[in-house]
Amino acid sequence: MAGPLLTLTTDFGTSSPFVAAMKGVVLSINPGARLLDLSHDIPPFDLLHASFFLAEALPYFPAGTIHVVVVDPEVGSGRDALYVEVAGQRLLVPDNGCWARLGAPARVLRLAEPRFWRASVSRTFHGRDVFAPAAAHLTLGVDPSELGPAAARWRALAAPEPGYFEDGATGQVVFVDHFGNLITNIRGAALPARWSSARVGGEAARRVVTYADAGPGELVALVSSSGMLEVAVTQGSAARRLSAGVGAPVRVEWGP
Amino acid sequence: MAGPLLTLTTDFGTSSPFVAAMKGVVLSINPGARLLDLSHDIPPFDLLHASFFLAEALPYFPAGTIHVVVVDPEVGSGRDALYVEVAGQRLLVPDNGCWARLGAPARVLRLAEPRFWRASVSRTFHGRDVFAPAAAHLTLGVDPSELGPAAARWRALAAPEPGYFEDGATGQVVFVDHFGNLITNIRGAALPARWSSARVGGEAARRVVTYADAGPGELVALVSSSGMLEVAVTQGSAARRLSAGVGAPVRVEWGP
Amino acid sequence: MAGPLLTLTTDFGTSSPFVAAMKGVVLSINPGARLLDLSHDIPPFDLLHASFFLAEALPYFPAGTIHVVVVDPEVGSGRDALYVEVAGQRLLVPDNGCWARLGAPARVLRLAEPRFWRASVSRTFHGRDVFAPAAAHLTLGVDPSELGPAAARWRALAAPEPGYFEDGATGQVVFVDHFGNLITNIRGAALPARWSSARVGGEAARRVVTYADAGPGELVALVSSSGMLEVAVTQGSAARRLSAGVGAPVRVEWGP
Repeated sequence: MAGPLLTLTTDFGTSSPFVAAMKGVVLSINPGARLLDLSHDIPPFDLLHASFFLAEALPYFPAGTIHVVVVDPEVGSGRDALYVEVAGQRLLVPDNGCWARLGAPARVLRLAEPRFWRASVSRTFHGRDVFAPAAAHLTLGVDPSELGPAAARWRALAAPEPGYFEDGATGQVVFVDHFGNLITNIRGAALPARWSSARVGGEAARRVVTYADAGPGELVALVSSSGMLEVAVTQGSAARRLSAGVGAPVRVEWGP
Repeated sequence: MAGPLLTLTTDFGTSSPFVAAMKGVVLSINPGARLLDLSHDIPPFDLLHASFFLAEALPYFPAGTIHVVVVDPEVGSGRDALYVEVAGQRLLVPDNGCWARLGAPARVLRLAEPRFWRASVSRTFHGRDVFAPAAAHLTLGVDPSELGPAAARWRALAAPEPGYFEDGATGQVVFVDHFGNLITNIRGAALPARWSSARVGGEAARRVVTYADAGPGELVALVSSSGMLEVAVTQGSAARRLSAGVGAPVRVEWGP
Repeated sequence: MAGPLLTLTTDFGTSSPFVAAMKGVVLSINPGARLLDLSHDIPPFDLLHASFFLAEALPYFPAGTIHVVVVDPEVGSGRDALYVEVAGQRLLVPDNGCWARLGAPARVLRLAEPRFWRASVSRTFHGRDVFAPAAAHLTLGVDPSELGPAAARWRALAAPEPGYFEDGATGQVVFVDHFGNLITNIRGAALPARWSSARVGGEAARRVVTYADAGPGELVALVSSSGMLEVAVTQGSAARRLSAGVGAPVRVEWGP
């Protein structure tokens, strides 16, 4: 095998040549690199979306997998470029906090050794010029400590906090998936066994265990495969039905 | 080589973390697995679309290729999870009939052995918890018969039937491709040599052999690369021009 | 390793089965082929877009990489199918000029040997029937000269030319990237050091070095990571803000 896997996650889309250029850079450094696309459809500049995406995807990968994650609204500014070990995974990522939901990091380094970058570094495309080449060198066995010194600090990502009360819980939609399911920041495990419904924008969603417990088109609330409260429409889109998106307030209710 | 290919086809999109999680699960079981994306852009819950997609793509793969296909509107209900051998291919798929166009199956098993699944199986994401891990075990050489017993029955997918008459044939659009070409359920080989035109929504499409036989913007009818009658606009979109989609009636005409 | 990389670039999208069929064809000829998606989101029939995409992506790949590039509005007509060596890369491509920005070719052959194609070649899908199988044979070590004779001629792609004057430069938008950044045909290296702003559709964009030199929402002009003048909105979309797309006139200005 040609070393560890190297995954790519960006907000670049694939109609533009940026992802292809990154792949070329990696393969020019390690022709046997094992590349894997995770997503290039993170909404542009959307760090909260990226944060949720990473938290729900990366823990399933083998320990030591290398992940290049570039959602980088501040490219070219003074923001640091980081190497992060967290949840057993290894990330190369702008300092933007998008990995914070994965937990406390085991190690954070600041990419500071230009010998692992492209010879000429642009001010607008560090995915190609910094992150991809540094990751490619890692797949060749470069020790992470060579990439740069320990980082003294890094950014958090402000995330809204849910509230748990005696007669209900309040939170908000933090992610809308491809089906229009509304995933919230309310943890299923934090709710009492008797919770009965969730409310978004005036409408009540009946508690079920899985989508198929209701008929097509019915509004339901359930604990999602990620353990979070989710509001959905069976075989439909809750986002469209409720005209609700990220930030929409959600209230879970239960009887006395 | 690291065992057989494992392809992925879903209606999950890639802005959501679901496909990435499935890839992680496969690679955690078989770090050398050879993953290949076929599509994550099957329209949500659209089994007819998936059915056409599979029939036009899978027969080109080497015999024994493993295909995980998850379009699963009934996830979490009592529907079975299947292993299907058909047309030389091996599918892991919810029991939804989407593989039926590939022909009569050589073998259908019911996935029933939780030791090949994730330790904890959610009620809403069997792609990650059942199908991906079972497929990963197959790439490691697990014999399919270990996955579960033979299935006694499985579902068909209701598909509209064309009609062939003395002076014409009637059918409908069953697939709209990325270019807006309208692919129908009328087989080119079932038409007489002298067929001359096809009619969709009031408009007549002139028979050609290939798109380039007409000028840009012209409405044409031809036998597609899959052998089915297709209505197209040269260098344009017939779907947009005719405001026609899946289900639109089509009539092929010929003289006496 | 299983031979050279084989990349795929098309305007087929992935909701349709065309790309999957091409992958199957390649793998049926060379089961160990190393496939890599570059893009299937080239806008339909858009050769200028493809031309820019290839020029910005292919030079980053290792020499000898094989690229199947199918944007083919004239499929089925008399247009040739080509093998092209240019910029160290090897392309299999319809004769449509989309590779011309990569420079002068070292070799151009006309694909003329049906023994490297599928046994039956459709009139509408040469990606599957001609280009994919020919490329698969190359990955197995077939010498390119076996594919067909040298081509006597091939097509150019008409591209608009910029004008450089004493007090300014004029050009146009040639590519809109995924973020809505407007990339022009004006070369940054051709501008005097003192250029100060660019004008698109009545609005002036202030010169910066990188997006982050301006506040979110500000209209800026910069030399892009590809060396071309680019008009952008920091953390926003210049295409939307200016309602501008490919072909929009651009003027760069400088003082005396």
